[in-house]
Amino acid sequence: MRSAGIREVARLSGVSIATVSRVFNDAASVRPDTQQRVLEQAAALGYEPSSLGRNLVRGRSELLGLIVPNVSFPLYGQMIGGIEDVLGHRGMSMLLASSHDDAVSELTAAQKVLRHAVDGGVVINTQSDVALPAPRGMNWVHISPEHSGLPYRVELDNAAGGRLAAREFLRLGRRHLAYIGAPGRESSERQHGFAGELSRAGLDYRRAQGDYSELSGTQAADDLLEKSSVLDAVFVAGDLMAAGVLRALHMRGLRVPGEVAVIGFDDAALASLLYPRLTSIRQPAYAMGAAAAELSLRLIGGHSAESVVFSPELVRRESTGPP
Amino acid sequence: MRSAGIREVARLSGVSIATVSRVFNDAASVRPDTQQRVLEQAAALGYEPSSLGRNLVRGRSELLGLIVPNVSFPLYGQMIGGIEDVLGHRGMSMLLASSHDDAVSELTAAQKVLRHAVDGGVVINTQSDVALPAPRGMNWVHISPEHSGLPYRVELDNAAGGRLAAREFLRLGRRHLAYIGAPGRESSERQHGFAGELSRAGLDYRRAQGDYSELSGTQAADDLLEKSSVLDAVFVAGDLMAAGVLRALHMRGLRVPGEVAVIGFDDAALASLLYPRLTSIRQPAYAMGAAAAELSLRLIGGHSAESVVFSPELVRRESTGPP
Repeated sequence: MRSAGIREVARLSGVSIATVSRVFNDAASVRPDTQQRVLEQAAALGYEPSSLGRNLVRGRSELLGLIVPNVSFPLYGQMIGGIEDVLGHRGMSMLLASSHDDAVSELTAAQKVLRHAVDGGVVINTQSDVALPAPRGMNWVHISPEHSGLPYRVELDNAAGGRLAAREFLRLGRRHLAYIGAPGRESSERQHGFAGELSRAGLDYRRAQGDYSELSGTQAADDLLEKSSVLDAVFVAGDLMAAGVLRALHMRGLRVPGEVAVIGFDDAALASLLYPRLTSIRQPAYAMGAAAAELSLRLIGGHSAESVVFSPELVRRESTGPP
Repeated sequence: MRSAGIREVARLSGVSIATVSRVFNDAASVRPDTQQRVLEQAAALGYEPSSLGRNLVRGRSELLGLIVPNVSFPLYGQMIGGIEDVLGHRGMSMLLASSHDDAVSELTAAQKVLRHAVDGGVVINTQSDVALPAPRGMNWVHISPEHSGLPYRVELDNAAGGRLAAREFLRLGRRHLAYIGAPGRESSERQHGFAGELSRAGLDYRRAQGDYSELSGTQAADDLLEKSSVLDAVFVAGDLMAAGVLRALHMRGLRVPGEVAVIGFDDAALASLLYPRLTSIRQPAYAMGAAAAELSLRLIGGHSAESVVFSPELVRRESTGPP
């Protein structure tokens, strides 16, 4: 399949063979204009270094497997962006497979990427409480796994996020609070932090349960509002559910934040597009993806590596303010 | 790295060696419960078929390269989902690289996936007007390329989308119309269809230009509204810009759709979360991704293949209605 050799690419680009090799193996060490010249010349000549033979010799595929519940969920897209940028700087590529939030599909996805002899792997939101299959020397890094017993994890301090939301409502003088949660460990931890902070202030709060969907947010808010008219602040476990809560409040003619303040969770792109723009607890998804890739690269390099816990931040927008 | 052979996996799963092989090479032909049993047994034994040696023999990597401007853009996420589902049924995997909407990065991304000897490739929204490098026998399929001279394309009939928007406004009795566009071929085609339909009805329309961002939508709408108070319908080249238009209208206290009707484009997940929910011209992103993967698989199989043009649909929601 090769129609030109590295020698010819080097000659026509006016650089050494070593430089051409670096463009394809360690691009960050070559000046961008030189890179571009070499890549264009290589493209014109139909040259591409074959990785297959090389990998058999080096015993490395230069591939990272990535298993993600659903690529079209924006938060995961940001995580993938962070992973990809770190890999790109090391000349590695990413093999992507979806788990569709299902343990059997996740196992199939893992087997699928393992067939390509990936050097390492990252799993976003694993559903499984057991380790995925891995050949000796290969490790999976988990972003936000449902179970905390897995060895290499990149996680958010969800309880700290709950505390941030509670403190913000207290600071704003809100006293009639509610939490709208969803199934799973993350929501429980968010609630735990929220409840702890309120309890220190001697306050109770009401609870409703959704499933992270917009509709479930509307229904949970309707339930809360039907049971009592006294509600001036709602903390919601996800931004999409919070969109549903805002809709329930609009429909009843309740002003946000005048009558009811709302805080979401994740700070997905959506949050700043809602009306009013949603105050949210930010999950630094891009940085978490980058950290997972770094952790994976350390393991691939045979170094020791530690799990990482990220701290969330409160991002204030229009859905919170004084009563 | 292999700690167990296919024979052992077959014996302990109670199936034939041929069945184990099919689980890893043609999974769709094996019953799900058998698949699961074999996969779990293979995982327990640390068995994984090595693809590297096999590929050298068969001359196929079973990999498809995918170049996407930005994984975290939801419409692209849907396209990737469609591609992945088609590949999954054929036991192929996807190698992902981002082009960051930049021609040089796109070329680098292409070289990167070509290093892994992909059997075929899909490029979403290529910025380049020249074909990407490809070894003999390998082809790139383009989803919505900026230039129409490339051989294998999956595209939306953007002009038809513009006509749908114009007809809907005319049907609703709107007569004071505007188009908010953005740079590039897609927006020009949308405008062309919109203008043609209005011209047949003897109507003119006003124009403003954004860049697909939310802020640019707000600014473009402000410009239009400052120049004239008579505006009762706005067609916007993208949903994110339309979110900005809705905001501009809210800020001026104009009722949507009572005073001004708004139609967006793409029908991204965002559209149905805006307030009011946005009527939009739907781009069937998942189906377009699946079609690109099918087209690519035909080419990999050595078959002839034709470019595909998809028709958009009008999805009516709350931002349009009678004056």
